[in-house]
Amino acid sequence: MDYQAVLEEVAAHVEPQIGRGRVAQYIPALASVDADRFGIALADVDGRGTGVGDWERPFSMQSISKAFSLALVLADDGEKLWRRVGREPSGNPFNSLVQLEYEHGIPRNPFINAGALVVTDRLHTLTGDASTTMLDFLRAESGNPDLAFDQDVAASETAHGDRNAALAHFMAAYGNLDNPVPTVLEHYFWQCSIEMIPQLPLGGAPCRDLALAGGFLARHGLRADGSRLLSRSEAKRVNAVMLTCGTYDAAGDFAYRVGLPGKSGVGGGIVAVVPGRCTLCVWSPGLDARGNSVAGVAALDHFTTLTGWSVF
Amino acid sequence: MDYQAVLEEVAAHVEPQIGRGRVAQYIPALASVDADRFGIALADVDGRGTGVGDWERPFSMQSISKAFSLALVLADDGEKLWRRVGREPSGNPFNSLVQLEYEHGIPRNPFINAGALVVTDRLHTLTGDASTTMLDFLRAESGNPDLAFDQDVAASETAHGDRNAALAHFMAAYGNLDNPVPTVLEHYFWQCSIEMIPQLPLGGAPCRDLALAGGFLARHGLRADGSRLLSRSEAKRVNAVMLTCGTYDAAGDFAYRVGLPGKSGVGGGIVAVVPGRCTLCVWSPGLDARGNSVAGVAALDHFTTLTGWSVF
Amino acid sequence: MDYQAVLEEVAAHVEPQIGRGRVAQYIPALASVDADRFGIALADVDGRGTGVGDWERPFSMQSISKAFSLALVLADDGEKLWRRVGREPSGNPFNSLVQLEYEHGIPRNPFINAGALVVTDRLHTLTGDASTTMLDFLRAESGNPDLAFDQDVAASETAHGDRNAALAHFMAAYGNLDNPVPTVLEHYFWQCSIEMIPQLPLGGAPCRDLALAGGFLARHGLRADGSRLLSRSEAKRVNAVMLTCGTYDAAGDFAYRVGLPGKSGVGGGIVAVVPGRCTLCVWSPGLDARGNSVAGVAALDHFTTLTGWSVF
Amino acid sequence: MDYQAVLEEVAAHVEPQIGRGRVAQYIPALASVDADRFGIALADVDGRGTGVGDWERPFSMQSISKAFSLALVLADDGEKLWRRVGREPSGNPFNSLVQLEYEHGIPRNPFINAGALVVTDRLHTLTGDASTTMLDFLRAESGNPDLAFDQDVAASETAHGDRNAALAHFMAAYGNLDNPVPTVLEHYFWQCSIEMIPQLPLGGAPCRDLALAGGFLARHGLRADGSRLLSRSEAKRVNAVMLTCGTYDAAGDFAYRVGLPGKSGVGGGIVAVVPGRCTLCVWSPGLDARGNSVAGVAALDHFTTLTGWSVF
Repeated sequence: MDYQAVLEEVAAHVEPQIGRGRVAQYIPALASVDADRFGIALADVDGRGTGVGDWERPFSMQSISKAFSLALVLADDGEKLWRRVGREPSGNPFNSLVQLEYEHGIPRNPFINAGALVVTDRLHTLTGDASTTMLDFLRAESGNPDLAFDQDVAASETAHGDRNAALAHFMAAYGNLDNPVPTVLEHYFWQCSIEMIPQLPLGGAPCRDLALAGGFLARHGLRADGSRLLSRSEAKRVNAVMLTCGTYDAAGDFAYRVGLPGKSGVGGGIVAVVPGRCTLCVWSPGLDARGNSVAGVAALDHFTTLTGWSVF
Repeated sequence: MDYQAVLEEVAAHVEPQIGRGRVAQYIPALASVDADRFGIALADVDGRGTGVGDWERPFSMQSISKAFSLALVLADDGEKLWRRVGREPSGNPFNSLVQLEYEHGIPRNPFINAGALVVTDRLHTLTGDASTTMLDFLRAESGNPDLAFDQDVAASETAHGDRNAALAHFMAAYGNLDNPVPTVLEHYFWQCSIEMIPQLPLGGAPCRDLALAGGFLARHGLRADGSRLLSRSEAKRVNAVMLTCGTYDAAGDFAYRVGLPGKSGVGGGIVAVVPGRCTLCVWSPGLDARGNSVAGVAALDHFTTLTGWSVF
Repeated sequence: MDYQAVLEEVAAHVEPQIGRGRVAQYIPALASVDADRFGIALADVDGRGTGVGDWERPFSMQSISKAFSLALVLADDGEKLWRRVGREPSGNPFNSLVQLEYEHGIPRNPFINAGALVVTDRLHTLTGDASTTMLDFLRAESGNPDLAFDQDVAASETAHGDRNAALAHFMAAYGNLDNPVPTVLEHYFWQCSIEMIPQLPLGGAPCRDLALAGGFLARHGLRADGSRLLSRSEAKRVNAVMLTCGTYDAAGDFAYRVGLPGKSGVGGGIVAVVPGRCTLCVWSPGLDARGNSVAGVAALDHFTTLTGWSVF
Repeated sequence: MDYQAVLEEVAAHVEPQIGRGRVAQYIPALASVDADRFGIALADVDGRGTGVGDWERPFSMQSISKAFSLALVLADDGEKLWRRVGREPSGNPFNSLVQLEYEHGIPRNPFINAGALVVTDRLHTLTGDASTTMLDFLRAESGNPDLAFDQDVAASETAHGDRNAALAHFMAAYGNLDNPVPTVLEHYFWQCSIEMIPQLPLGGAPCRDLALAGGFLARHGLRADGSRLLSRSEAKRVNAVMLTCGTYDAAGDFAYRVGLPGKSGVGGGIVAVVPGRCTLCVWSPGLDARGNSVAGVAALDHFTTLTGWSVF
């Protein structure tokens, strides 16, 4: 298949959607991003990548990091994580405290903020430094050593972090955090702040880099260097959680329209996986009411229509 | 692949789980079923079926019927249905009224009882007889003309139907039913009461018959006779809804363990789909706390482990 | 105290509020009432009544009947009722199904619709005719034999009764109704439909009549003829439930502003009790967002400010 | 009335209940209290006090402080507080986050923890020192200058304060706190930690002291020295909020059984008000499932039965 041609057709198809939706407003570093951007890249299982549009512009990972922290914990710790976090769709907006209370401090899944705080807490205990561990992993898989924390974003997340602080304290009250609340919050915010930036001075392509970083999910658990991060079964399971929980409370709709495992972030990025074939990374900052990129979802929808590569 | 051998290995593997869980108790016709049963059958996309264990014994479809009514409405009516029912996982036990109230009488998805009542209402409006339409479809696809409503089960469902009556009246209060509440309830209960029975006097195999009946979902929308029920895209979408919503509030866990679209019923049956390859029907009456067959889920879990045929 | 003068001052004070709010819309018989009405009457513990404004015009009791059915059941059955209904404020809008589900079919209190259905069910079991029992009681206490069911209102309530049918079926599913759902609904709707109408051919005053009918709550349980309906302790308890639960989800606000036990109805009436002194009945059809008469609450607020007769 | 004789009869009546329930366990300083204690004291509107039982033993105010902080804010700030906190019963356990989320960071009433944090925040803004302001007020009204913060309790509350920290951060996220979260928490915990201790070296009676401190609520707003803290109307309103919201999610039951405004604390104390007559303070550390003193509620119930002094 001529990936470049497919991506170009996708980009042409979604052009009317670019700029729709609303850029995330809760922190200034995100609110100032230009809404009229759209980039998409594809990385095949052999590590070859291509892309179109604004695929060479930097953007903030935000919640896409949650997929990587889940994988890193499962790699190290196996199934034990599921004593502390569920794997059911939340059925509620992504910051909801309601289910957390009804379910005694056990978050519904690892991709709502509460669940990601638990995963970060565990990753920190396992590695001693949850945020650096993730950054190192992303650099290694993407081959881009210039990926970095964005200190402005991290500081801004902290300054506007009362909801996440509430979640963390609430779970601490139920005994579901091992590390101090401020430590967990700090590493969580650093993870979200990772900026996908072009490698210097070569130039480069953040969309492609992030697609490459997620390649292990298409390779049934194998890292870029051929070593194994996850067993085949574990890789399948991360994909399953992404499909059922990866796009906030729109996971059912995303499965219906796109039919691929995917993880979105309020920076406008989405990583999607075609198991055995490739990973995709799309970025467009305009978000729908549920926090997913409008043009990004439309692009993945059209991609699976063109290729027939949904999992269903 | 030697399906027979695979199914035998699956059956041997789950043997210790057979009889675990609890047979549905809410109506006598289900409560009297022998818990120590287990059958599994597979139908490939060419309509060849095979099975092991108690695959030749009769059982009650129950909520598996919801997958067929959804497909029949989408076939006739397309996307309009989604104005009246969502497609997000419910995040709550299957009879919950809570989200129905918060969401103004629009059920979360077509597989919770409230959603299935809406689908039945629409199917009844489209066809004039929602329950007979479904029975005719099942007979045609399975090739078993002896499939029938179980009048005892239907009467018993009606007698114990206060929760479903509450749901129906509640949606009627929001204007989300077109037909009278008693009509909708009647056809809903008849659909659930369909009994998978062996064809007489030939003998036969209900598990295989139900796997055959679901074959259109593996054939990307083509019926047994090669005619098209659903477009490729529509078939993908029914599978997506099954994966995210098909097993009550355990859909995330089912996706995680099994990784296939599936629809379960409290009669102990589950239909699962391997798109492009085959459908499976497993039956074992012992249910877990969330209403899914204990041995049935374990069997599908082991099947995907043996074959690698999860969608992820 | 010169009651007539006080009531006139109250009426003058609330004049700007008359016509504010919104007349109940859910049934035609209520929607057609003229919003610009206001009447208030007071009945002292010796059975003397007086009033001002539109106190001689007819109106529909609606939920004010719930206070009478509660008293009639407690009179006959004592504390046993509380096994089937709670006595805590609902903290939610008056038709909410949420708490009913979390609390397993036990309504929060006797004044939300679900709770009143349980009380009606019990009254029907105790007396054989829940609605006639109440009508007879109201006629006797008010001395007005012309009080009657309004058949149009009852028919209209039934036709728009899906929410109440949902509540009743839901409680039946939990085994919390003794009589058939249609019977309970019928008597519930008849009770709500009772019309406060002037005695013919004498003329008369519905506001006064309803204040008289509630006189037993000011007389610590004694009926108009001096016989005892409730013990002193029981009368106190009905007043307590009225104060904490009598005005839908505005009970805290009503206690704060008025400081008297009161029961409102969507017909625009409110009955309030000054224990040991008098009962008041105010009527004005414009309702606030929580279903209580705008001018009615304002009038009672000013009455307690003028007289100092709040219970606090 | 011979108060001493009434209190002795009350104490004799509730003797079988003393030691029932469960002492608060969440902090060591409370968990170590002897459950077999019971004291009750009454202070009339002229400032004369009497008591029986363990009325001379020290205890921790805990949430009873919430009634005083509310009064102090209303005295200074009037009705403006109600923009930031409601006055409806919560209908849910006292730490629930659910309604806080549904109602956008506006707590239901000033006596749930979230509401008390808002009141403390406001009192701190108004006075510059929310906890010392309250302590000074209690010392002045009780005439006991030895009342003090219990540093062990305050430190313990802080160490176990994750739920309250979650509530505070959550409201901060909605912009409903003016002061920094740690400042609000600190003053809130100090207020709760105030210990009712006997005056030294004279001996003294903490139950009586706390009854005296609440005397302004029985005197329609007048302080012990005759100066006015609250207008008559404001005093009525604080009493109304105590009646509808003062005993966690048992306010309806407390109104039903006792029929007086009251505010309880998990230290086992309850202050109740008979407007125009007296205040009562009862203390017994065994709590029921909803956090109110078992013997304390029973004592107040019997007191109103003996005296007929319920407000209803």
